[in-house]
Amino acid sequence: MNKYVDLKYKPKEDELIAKYFVEPINGKSLEEIANHIAGESSIDTWSSITTLSESMRKRLMPHVYKIDDKKKIIEIAYNSELFEEGNMSQILSAIAGNIYGMSLVKNLRLLDFILPENMVKSFQGPQFGIKGVRKILNVYDRPLVGTIVKPKVGLNVKEHTDVGYKSWIGGCDAVKDDENLTSMKFNKFEERIPSMLNAMDKAINETGEKKVYFPNITGPYDKMVERYDCVVESGGNYIMYDILTAGFGALQGIRKMSKLPIHGHRAMHGALTRNKKMGMSMLALAKISRLLGIDTLHIGAIFGKMEGSESEIVEIENEIESETKRASRIALKQPWYRMKKTMAVASGGVYPGVVPKIINSMGNDIVIQAGGGISAHKNGIVDGSKAMRQAIEASMQNISLNDYAKKHKELKIALEQWGE
Amino acid sequence: MNKYVDLKYKPKEDELIAKYFVEPINGKSLEEIANHIAGESSIDTWSSITTLSESMRKRLMPHVYKIDDKKKIIEIAYNSELFEEGNMSQILSAIAGNIYGMSLVKNLRLLDFILPENMVKSFQGPQFGIKGVRKILNVYDRPLVGTIVKPKVGLNVKEHTDVGYKSWIGGCDAVKDDENLTSMKFNKFEERIPSMLNAMDKAINETGEKKVYFPNITGPYDKMVERYDCVVESGGNYIMYDILTAGFGALQGIRKMSKLPIHGHRAMHGALTRNKKMGMSMLALAKISRLLGIDTLHIGAIFGKMEGSESEIVEIENEIESETKRASRIALKQPWYRMKKTMAVASGGVYPGVVPKIINSMGNDIVIQAGGGISAHKNGIVDGSKAMRQAIEASMQNISLNDYAKKHKELKIALEQWGE
Repeated sequence: MNKYVDLKYKPKEDELIAKYFVEPINGKSLEEIANHIAGESSIDTWSSITTLSESMRKRLMPHVYKIDDKKKIIEIAYNSELFEEGNMSQILSAIAGNIYGMSLVKNLRLLDFILPENMVKSFQGPQFGIKGVRKILNVYDRPLVGTIVKPKVGLNVKEHTDVGYKSWIGGCDAVKDDENLTSMKFNKFEERIPSMLNAMDKAINETGEKKVYFPNITGPYDKMVERYDCVVESGGNYIMYDILTAGFGALQGIRKMSKLPIHGHRAMHGALTRNKKMGMSMLALAKISRLLGIDTLHIGAIFGKMEGSESEIVEIENEIESETKRASRIALKQPWYRMKKTMAVASGGVYPGVVPKIINSMGNDIVIQAGGGISAHKNGIVDGSKAMRQAIEASMQNISLNDYAKKHKELKIALEQWGE
Repeated sequence: MNKYVDLKYKPKEDELIAKYFVEPINGKSLEEIANHIAGESSIDTWSSITTLSESMRKRLMPHVYKIDDKKKIIEIAYNSELFEEGNMSQILSAIAGNIYGMSLVKNLRLLDFILPENMVKSFQGPQFGIKGVRKILNVYDRPLVGTIVKPKVGLNVKEHTDVGYKSWIGGCDAVKDDENLTSMKFNKFEERIPSMLNAMDKAINETGEKKVYFPNITGPYDKMVERYDCVVESGGNYIMYDILTAGFGALQGIRKMSKLPIHGHRAMHGALTRNKKMGMSMLALAKISRLLGIDTLHIGAIFGKMEGSESEIVEIENEIESETKRASRIALKQPWYRMKKTMAVASGGVYPGVVPKIINSMGNDIVIQAGGGISAHKNGIVDGSKAMRQAIEASMQNISLNDYAKKHKELKIALEQWGE
């Protein structure tokens, strides 16, 4: 009776695969629920449908080809005709839509998905990617250092600019607004951006280094377009976007319009990703972000204030920085077909003492971001930024932080202040 | 030490209030975690911030003014200067952003929020609302009847149009696309819309009734604009939008641009709303939808295939159809300051037998939608639609369905087929 379940079915190269954790309500078998999920996410509803031709039904029907009763994991292969190319919202409305609300399901989590070639290629992916971002900054041999102006909200334009300027001259490559700072009464976007970019130019001249600024354009679509224009007119070289609270539809529009790289903040992701039985994995969300064109993406810091295990964060980084060109459908490995790589951003409670551990786990192709871990440095923001850069230099030279701190007082103070 | 907790604090008229369910990790008190949540959602980070002036800190600091240790509920009052007027994404990045990812928190749910007057008025709200939608349809004295073309995906334009036409002439007021149907290879948007609207015009002429069609424009922003234009050029009178998978930023843009009412589908909401300890309540999501301008919104059907208790659904309906003009801050009742009302849509596994129960719980100001409960009627879609209309007529006249079915064979068959 479970017409969509066929454990002998071999998923085809051109199918979309979705992998779920599923906990049925009491008394229901995983197989029965898997069948309902497959139907509700594609061509079915609760009653028998008489309007669909038999040939079309056969062509479009989903196949549940894997059921792991112990781990409560299922895998479903969907004909790619069920999805619109280049339309992430439509794909999610299918494979991550109504099924969460089914009364037969107790818990449901989209763990992963694999898109076929035509669908991967229908998305733009990052415009710059790791290589492009490194080129803008002219930094190729170390992780990038970023800071978030803190407090999140509360500084006026002058104070905000002062924090930015000091961070840049201290050694930060990137300075960013925080996720909830857009245009406030006491810190207007159209005043902040030119002020920050002037300070950035000054820092570029003084340090001889390239710099970037991530202004948070998040808002209603028309406002984002206005803000993007303001950034471009002010000579900016990056924009920042809150992926979840502003959403996927607008992100695709901004990506098409933007000539600048896009920094992705994941505020609200925990509401979807935190409970390991519900919602969606951060891995799935990170893949979506790469497909939609995010150049640098927050994925967690391993050692910091936010949740996220080391293995999970490393897996996510591997995926968004993967070059897999073609791979087995069965291994559930997404081939990326030359799509540019999204650079992972380690952020959330980061301070100099944890830098070697982060690099050890996540490698060089990352942005290491510290907000409070820079601005709360005892001797101020310039020294806070220096300490972060020194921690990176030490790691690059394979010298312990304590040794390096002997000749670098800013790092020494940071280590005394926050430890390792 | 919990500097933001002040249980004697009285929230002010011009503050934003957020109400959360919070479960701290083991060993932490609710008070300590409440303090962290208040800080992380506003002006703080994990380290002491030295950049914020004391006067600004005092002005902007949040106040946890209520802690219910038994129910694990807290309420926080935020200075409205922390938020940008008319920018829902920014508000959510603050009160429903990073806090979900804090390692100190085990579970966190935004249960409700109350916006102050300036912020309510900064959002457009529904352009048509209940009155406007009723005026388009010229139906004032009964619930509206809608159908979703089923299967969700799989019909070609001709088949889709046939279902639409039969539904309209059978008695449906509204016909809608499903959440995962946008523009498919076998059913292109730009072909489906004119075809459906021709059929609608024909049905209008034949029945003498007004009709509406909800074409699903969900997609990348630029595509949505194209699709909106296609709907307008084809003489359409409504658009449909997947609120969560297309997102809030794009919705605000579409609302500003659109001269047509917007039907809101909530696909993916369960990922946020289902687990009662995590994410966000459907009540909060429904309020957001009203603020952003959704005219008709899926909120569940009480009796159907989707989860959602009767009391919860009725509470949501009361809120989006509320006229509260001014109310006590303490009672956590959102004043709507004459914002138009969003019409509740009862949908998901609905069939004629449950119509009286739905009306009994939800009243008249609803759209009752049946997809499979119409198209799977034994005698076809025209009779399926007739049966739904008959069920509504019976309810309006306070006649039991079984009595009414004696003289209405379509209803009789539906009752035999699916029961009450």
